[in-house]
Amino acid sequence: MTLNDVAAFLMENDRYEILTHSSPDGDTLGSGYALCMALRQKGKKARVVNTDLPKDFEFLDAYVEPMDFEADKIISVDVADENLLGINKEKYQGKIDLCIDHHIRSIVNAPYKYVEGDAAANCEIIYLLLRAMDVSIDKKIADALYTGVSTDTGCFRYSNTTSRTLRIAAELMDMGADVSYINKVMFETKSKLRIELEREIYGSIEYWADGRCAVVCVDIPLKERLGYEDSIDGLAAIPRQIEGVEIGITMNEKEPNLFKISVRADEKVNASEFCARFGGGGHAAAAGCRITGSKAEVKAKLKAAVEALL
Amino acid sequence: MTLNDVAAFLMENDRYEILTHSSPDGDTLGSGYALCMALRQKGKKARVVNTDLPKDFEFLDAYVEPMDFEADKIISVDVADENLLGINKEKYQGKIDLCIDHHIRSIVNAPYKYVEGDAAANCEIIYLLLRAMDVSIDKKIADALYTGVSTDTGCFRYSNTTSRTLRIAAELMDMGADVSYINKVMFETKSKLRIELEREIYGSIEYWADGRCAVVCVDIPLKERLGYEDSIDGLAAIPRQIEGVEIGITMNEKEPNLFKISVRADEKVNASEFCARFGGGGHAAAAGCRITGSKAEVKAKLKAAVEALL
Repeated sequence: MTLNDVAAFLMENDRYEILTHSSPDGDTLGSGYALCMALRQKGKKARVVNTDLPKDFEFLDAYVEPMDFEADKIISVDVADENLLGINKEKYQGKIDLCIDHHIRSIVNAPYKYVEGDAAANCEIIYLLLRAMDVSIDKKIADALYTGVSTDTGCFRYSNTTSRTLRIAAELMDMGADVSYINKVMFETKSKLRIELEREIYGSIEYWADGRCAVVCVDIPLKERLGYEDSIDGLAAIPRQIEGVEIGITMNEKEPNLFKISVRADEKVNASEFCARFGGGGHAAAAGCRITGSKAEVKAKLKAAVEALL
Repeated sequence: MTLNDVAAFLMENDRYEILTHSSPDGDTLGSGYALCMALRQKGKKARVVNTDLPKDFEFLDAYVEPMDFEADKIISVDVADENLLGINKEKYQGKIDLCIDHHIRSIVNAPYKYVEGDAAANCEIIYLLLRAMDVSIDKKIADALYTGVSTDTGCFRYSNTTSRTLRIAAELMDMGADVSYINKVMFETKSKLRIELEREIYGSIEYWADGRCAVVCVDIPLKERLGYEDSIDGLAAIPRQIEGVEIGITMNEKEPNLFKISVRADEKVNASEFCARFGGGGHAAAAGCRITGSKAEVKAKLKAAVEALL
């Protein structure tokens, strides 16, 4: 289906719930809130359904008044797999009517599905969709879309960035997106505790496969020792940045013996294929999975997979 | 004078030397090499004259064959003050014919002068100038210009970035700029030694003025202990990133008892005015100066100035 078909579907129906993925990031939330505001502008009822909402993104939620209604169409944004619906999976599994995504390997089953694997951010697709729907992109919608476009590209630094990404960001700036605020919150502000955490991590990087792989681990004892409770988003970029490293792995112990693994790879390695071995997925340059076991067990599994790969 | 006047001046004359500022960064070098290649494309003789050339930028120099000739016109790019010509000051002082700059407080005396303080990078001006000269922007020129535009904006993250900056970057991508390579070298690669240095710095941040100022110092003993000889470009962003910090100061001991001071400020504080107290300058958000004295003396001078300011 084309974007115009998606636009037509959205204009034909009236009451929408929009699902974002669990551990929501700027792109799924930016997509959700931008689409919600756009649908309301077109006279529809719409709300965003998140598993949770990190503090940095609360400003987006504040743009949308609560709205009570019975939804009849379910949309997912930036959700590659129903397993990523987290606590919302039970309620919504098998009920998604429209899936809008930029994960080329999306396995969501939905009667209407629009996937564009070349889009650096799902918010790029939402931007083009809103233009197809003739939505007037105001400051708030522009903020939501810029949040997604900038966070999914590391502020236009990652290799997924295209000239289209930059042109869309320019349009969003001209439409009033508060780029200074968003960049500051997303990229330019670190708490003192975060500085402490990064210092610890810098002191404990492990190298595998002759330095072609760097591994960082944030386990529960470390978080408890520092009193660190915030998200560790962005840390995943650190190991990949080190000279000579082709694949950077960040282990984040979410619950005792349950590690969220973030993988970042350069062009020689496919992070998504690597994570697929552990039931995860994502993009070629950035992907993730979950592995259970003790820290030593999880490291051993990852190390074996890295050595098989490189 | 307008950009068209600058273009006309360049087309009328024939043999150019292009001066960059000392401790050259991506913007002065990108400006210099892009303009040099453009002038040669137009049948002129041209060469870039640097004080030195950091390793990361050697690829730009490799784009330009050495050329032996007697110059009759001298151009400075991104040079706000003849004192910033470093070892080239003696030879070229008072001889600059054309100054192209984006420092609003530029004090270079030149018969032809084009300054646009709103340009995030000087390379934005050079891009527009090359369009005015009807230069065909090839891959190499695009690389040079993208290097300047991206490095002077922290890859489009800093508040100086405008929608024009993003659109120019998009054009340069479409013209073949190797954005993946440039972003990787400029923003995505850290040596293991650099990681060590950042770890040391994270452990030694000082806070002044109730945490509204953060200060980081890289002195000669620290560099010697780590064996660190590279540039510390980019470190200056660290202290400003800390939550609550309005002014971030990085002290870099270049020679015994000679500190290069880099200042980064948020919108409440003017870094350029702060540095002007010490004979330096720059932009509102990013500026620099040099102060002589022992580490303790320089800190005391800075601290007094910070407390007077905040």
